[in-house]
Amino acid sequence: MADTVRLGLMGLGTVGSGLVELVNRNAAAIEQKSGVRLEIAKALVKTPGKPRPLPPERLCYDPAELVEDPEVDLVVEVIGGIEPAKSLMLRALEAGKDVVTANKAVLARHGAEIFTAAARAGRQVGFEASVCGGIPIVRAISSGLIANDIDEFVGILNGTSNYVLTRMYKDKLPYPEAVRLAQEKGLAEADPSFDVGGLDAAHKLIVLTELTFQVKATVDEIELEGIEQIEPVDIEIADQFGFVIKPLAVARRQGELLDLRVHPALVPFEHPLGAVSDEFNAVLVKGDAIGEMIFLGKGAGSLPTASAVLSDIVEIARNSGNGVMWNPLASRRLAHVEATSRYYLRLPIYDRPGLIGKIGTALGDEGISVTHVQARVAGRADEGQMMIITHPTAESVVNRALERIHAACALRGAPVTLRIVD
Amino acid sequence: MADTVRLGLMGLGTVGSGLVELVNRNAAAIEQKSGVRLEIAKALVKTPGKPRPLPPERLCYDPAELVEDPEVDLVVEVIGGIEPAKSLMLRALEAGKDVVTANKAVLARHGAEIFTAAARAGRQVGFEASVCGGIPIVRAISSGLIANDIDEFVGILNGTSNYVLTRMYKDKLPYPEAVRLAQEKGLAEADPSFDVGGLDAAHKLIVLTELTFQVKATVDEIELEGIEQIEPVDIEIADQFGFVIKPLAVARRQGELLDLRVHPALVPFEHPLGAVSDEFNAVLVKGDAIGEMIFLGKGAGSLPTASAVLSDIVEIARNSGNGVMWNPLASRRLAHVEATSRYYLRLPIYDRPGLIGKIGTALGDEGISVTHVQARVAGRADEGQMMIITHPTAESVVNRALERIHAACALRGAPVTLRIVD
Repeated sequence: MADTVRLGLMGLGTVGSGLVELVNRNAAAIEQKSGVRLEIAKALVKTPGKPRPLPPERLCYDPAELVEDPEVDLVVEVIGGIEPAKSLMLRALEAGKDVVTANKAVLARHGAEIFTAAARAGRQVGFEASVCGGIPIVRAISSGLIANDIDEFVGILNGTSNYVLTRMYKDKLPYPEAVRLAQEKGLAEADPSFDVGGLDAAHKLIVLTELTFQVKATVDEIELEGIEQIEPVDIEIADQFGFVIKPLAVARRQGELLDLRVHPALVPFEHPLGAVSDEFNAVLVKGDAIGEMIFLGKGAGSLPTASAVLSDIVEIARNSGNGVMWNPLASRRLAHVEATSRYYLRLPIYDRPGLIGKIGTALGDEGISVTHVQARVAGRADEGQMMIITHPTAESVVNRALERIHAACALRGAPVTLRIVD
Repeated sequence: MADTVRLGLMGLGTVGSGLVELVNRNAAAIEQKSGVRLEIAKALVKTPGKPRPLPPERLCYDPAELVEDPEVDLVVEVIGGIEPAKSLMLRALEAGKDVVTANKAVLARHGAEIFTAAARAGRQVGFEASVCGGIPIVRAISSGLIANDIDEFVGILNGTSNYVLTRMYKDKLPYPEAVRLAQEKGLAEADPSFDVGGLDAAHKLIVLTELTFQVKATVDEIELEGIEQIEPVDIEIADQFGFVIKPLAVARRQGELLDLRVHPALVPFEHPLGAVSDEFNAVLVKGDAIGEMIFLGKGAGSLPTASAVLSDIVEIARNSGNGVMWNPLASRRLAHVEATSRYYLRLPIYDRPGLIGKIGTALGDEGISVTHVQARVAGRADEGQMMIITHPTAESVVNRALERIHAACALRGAPVTLRIVD
């Protein structure tokens, strides 16, 4: 009575090994609950001779062998990156196999091509694992909340950035030390820029945007900023003013316009994402029927990601023959909208008479009014900082005010501008 | 290309009307996203002549007509209660129609019979709306988290109770006034006992327990306690000691034993459910792959519930011919386990010398050690209260200690005993 799914794992790294572990541990229970029997038929690896969680006869070294093996029903793509992942997924689909992937980069760039190929082949592509690891957010948006007109979602989609900012906040660490700690804990790569620079979150934002709004976006269309510029003083002043700095990804619709952003932002203490700490991910979804809903959990790591991959495998096996599971073949195009928000500004100033007056005048001349101001010079002329929180203002107005400030007085360095997300 | 589903609504009350509103508003978008076209073919109502959101020719007054109408593909049961809801659902299934229901009471008592009938008829039963309204928790457990071995879940499953306790906490209202406010806001019935007494949460706990553990439980097997006994002093003292009182539903597995409870409990401020306020629901799920995951949103109300009902309808239409969507035909039986926890005790005492010594001795004689004690007599002998927080203790030991206390000294009234959920 059980439907056996013979899996071909393309990759046996962190996620692939987690998947083998989880299948070994829970396959019997999964079969009992779902009627789907899981069998790991084959796994593609690169280097022979390494210790592996599978017997040697189930390893293979040739990608073509895996994606065309008649003994494989479903290919799990967990090698990451664009190529050869993309070509192999396409070949697997052409060979009549379903595909499950955790690869947000390839979906964000080549999603349309992959889903078109899947539709042509009558196969399914599962990608729950590509966004927020173990949190079933893809299912929630494409199925659980399908009756809703969703206006907006705000997510903490990158666990590494959240961990780094949490250590800076809770342990008062400077940025480089917090990054080092994340690397020690296996939460950041040796080169952390993909995570802390916001590109990883941007890829996830693109996938969720396609699912939610049927809009195809590219990285270039996202206002993208990493967390590298955040200094302890920003976190300290935000805290004094009642905010915590979080790495957000935002999609907000206004009519037919869509505002897509990935950047660190100040959120009020009482904001539902304000307490989402460490490497946790969360997504706040606003829909016309459900109001506000929040999904919170571990967004990365071997077992949470493997959990999402397995959930897709079971779902595909249950729906077999039903064609593409989710079909984010976006038709609408993105139109940019200039979103207004409160802003936090940090201006590195010299300790000189008249400076605060000049800055205040420049802001006033652009019609920006402020709610909080704090200046610190700490007794040394080369360490001054002026921190400002504005009333809701358009980004272009903030930028013009910063130009005025530059024209009116010399600053010690580049200003830091962070949005406040209420 | 669209799959049309002709709906028969059994009931046009709060949820039924919400469903009509949501279909009118979002059916085109749902069709575009899912390929499923929704059509409300007929609705069963009781009283002729009332204003209705559907034209008269689509209303019917005879249940048999609705459940056997060849123009109806799927019956939405939103009349609530056990009968005639249960018989009509069974007749609809026999007549070859899928069924979607928001009725936790009927599932908790007669779930096995209904799912057996569905399996026999080769039809599906959707029940996302029966637990936590708009939150897709049924999908999460039965699909998104299916690869996990779940040890435990803790939920705030009854929005009315949460709202009442929130008003008592935030607005310092006594219990009867908080209940009145809930009634004014439409969050509590004229007779609120089904919600505040815990039975509604118990039904939802039974549904989630079947899904999560494949264990069939009955209300009698749940340690069940309402929030009626909570007084402002409990909330105030809990707050002083670092806790907030929340209406919890708990399912915790220990080997083959299962501990099922519905009761108000103290949770530490920093607990993830501590900040879930007002009428919000939330479920914290602990799984071996995902770790801790939280789902939070509106658990009741017309549109959130209609959102869940529609999500099931779309899912059933997509999987058509696939048999029962979820199959909580539990086989395992429940074995009780005595769970140990910290306890909060409030003892109504008289202001008499030696009393605190006697109470302390009684606790000590049972081996209970305490972490916090506070006594108040407020200058009047008939208003004394003694509040105690214990170290982790078995319930039977707490009960024996209370017997010793009763034997050693007269109390003004019954003690209040609340668990602490860490």
